[in-house]
Amino acid sequence: MKLDNLLSLIERDLEAVEEAIKSNLENDIKLITTIGTHILDSGGKRLRPALLLLTSRLLHNLTPERISIATAIEFIHTATLLHDDVVDNSELRRGKSSANTIWGNEASVLVGDFLFAKAFSLMVKCNNLAILEIMSNATKELAEGEIFELIKTGDLQTAINDYFKIIDKKTAILFAAACEVSAVMAGIDTKHQKLLKEFGSNIGISFQLVDDALDYMSTDEELGKKIGIDIEEGKVTYPLIFALEKATEEEFEKIKELFYKESPSKEDVFFIKDFVIKKGGTDAAVKAAKVNVEKAKQALSSFEENEAKEALIKLSDFIVSRRF
Amino acid sequence: MKLDNLLSLIERDLEAVEEAIKSNLENDIKLITTIGTHILDSGGKRLRPALLLLTSRLLHNLTPERISIATAIEFIHTATLLHDDVVDNSELRRGKSSANTIWGNEASVLVGDFLFAKAFSLMVKCNNLAILEIMSNATKELAEGEIFELIKTGDLQTAINDYFKIIDKKTAILFAAACEVSAVMAGIDTKHQKLLKEFGSNIGISFQLVDDALDYMSTDEELGKKIGIDIEEGKVTYPLIFALEKATEEEFEKIKELFYKESPSKEDVFFIKDFVIKKGGTDAAVKAAKVNVEKAKQALSSFEENEAKEALIKLSDFIVSRRF
Repeated sequence: MKLDNLLSLIERDLEAVEEAIKSNLENDIKLITTIGTHILDSGGKRLRPALLLLTSRLLHNLTPERISIATAIEFIHTATLLHDDVVDNSELRRGKSSANTIWGNEASVLVGDFLFAKAFSLMVKCNNLAILEIMSNATKELAEGEIFELIKTGDLQTAINDYFKIIDKKTAILFAAACEVSAVMAGIDTKHQKLLKEFGSNIGISFQLVDDALDYMSTDEELGKKIGIDIEEGKVTYPLIFALEKATEEEFEKIKELFYKESPSKEDVFFIKDFVIKKGGTDAAVKAAKVNVEKAKQALSSFEENEAKEALIKLSDFIVSRRF
Repeated sequence: MKLDNLLSLIERDLEAVEEAIKSNLENDIKLITTIGTHILDSGGKRLRPALLLLTSRLLHNLTPERISIATAIEFIHTATLLHDDVVDNSELRRGKSSANTIWGNEASVLVGDFLFAKAFSLMVKCNNLAILEIMSNATKELAEGEIFELIKTGDLQTAINDYFKIIDKKTAILFAAACEVSAVMAGIDTKHQKLLKEFGSNIGISFQLVDDALDYMSTDEELGKKIGIDIEEGKVTYPLIFALEKATEEEFEKIKELFYKESPSKEDVFFIKDFVIKKGGTDAAVKAAKVNVEKAKQALSSFEENEAKEALIKLSDFIVSRRF
């Protein structure tokens, strides 16, 4: 199923978010508008806003603030993308040249900062301290996750628990926050607030697991970025950790040798990629993603059956079946 | 007069801020503590917290929240320093190796993000939306100022108005915010809120003017960073703009030639430096700083005479007389 179809219920809400994104990028300083538009127009799936908007519909909450908060969350996500590309020295983002490649690392860092600040400005205007608490905490954890990932970069002995700690903080936290703020805005009981947060968190974990599997599985064109980039960047993710656990001592030494090469060749990257797939690393990652999607769906079980819930369940399935 | 002496009135408050800085840098992820401590212990003058604490004393406001907000403002300032050093590729910060030199640009970007987020977490805990509005807006303007400065880097034709727009956003806004939040916390009337904000803003402009003059005047040891670094980084500040306005066409061409060299020699930098001083650029910057300090003092005139006011006036004078 295509993403667009399953989001038809919130088509107008998503349009409102697009308009808010555009108007909040308008600035006397044209470089902000240019870089902001470049990255925000580069085909992002708007999953975090979609989760917020669908969970709001699930709870029959149509307050205009949801558009502002959805926009703010997308800004925070986008700020981290700009900073990530600087950290990873990425040349491509979703098939287009990354902002740092075109305008330099300096501009990417500073426009990222602008987006963070703008996000908080938008949220403050909604006059809801509970939302601000969730969001400032999520942003803090996000930064912690990115730093912990940086520390673990190049560490072939990364434990699976550390991997989950990283993706919980760097990815799941923002998905969880998107759903939790919906719950808070709608004013539902704390038990159901927790359940929605849990739903978002599990979706986020699944999303990252699939992302990490796709880095080994897709072709360059499908993914819109170079394949095997995690290997080149020294990122040790679920598929590789799983494969290394099944490796003989000899295999481990071979992978280690290729992984730590100053500049691994395309062949080296493909050797590691094939090894990971053969050892079942990518299958295991997708399987783990599916387990988390089931947990996510389970968290929704005590909510009213309605169109929004149906869409959320389809969105959950999309997360694990996507190829890009 | 030494800075320490004139801050004796808020010695304990500043100690409380130091404790809050320390406890908020404690983290399971040790790299956050390490980098955070490195930059926050590198001899910063804590001017922004000092302004907040002194203006709070001026208004007899001793609410514990002032310590949290002062800490948050110092965190925001520190985050921008970390990101600035990445943007400028700086090797030194206050005489010590800069964080990016030791731990890399990646870690500096991400720990900067952490400090931004932590600052907002601290502020949200104070449950005051008016403060959050001031601070999120200040942070947004700060980012805009940095971006505008980046755009104007290397532009020898930078207009004086653009220079003032840059320093207003990148420096004065945080000094202004520190004083304005004091006023809001103390609940004084809006007329006096505006006056305190104006006081802070003028102090900030003076501070930056002196900073830019010192870059041409001090020796390396006094400044704790390389002298003439603005020239090397292509930053066109008040002293240079002033000097170029007084330059003959021939002189302008000569400066232009040296300024745009791929890697200017020490002699080239000293040539520009001497030119700027001889044309009165540094004197003019200090003079402009003094005008703004007088405006700052003027803004305080309708406030009660007390020890805190006396200290604020001495602090204002310190800003323009300092040599580091």
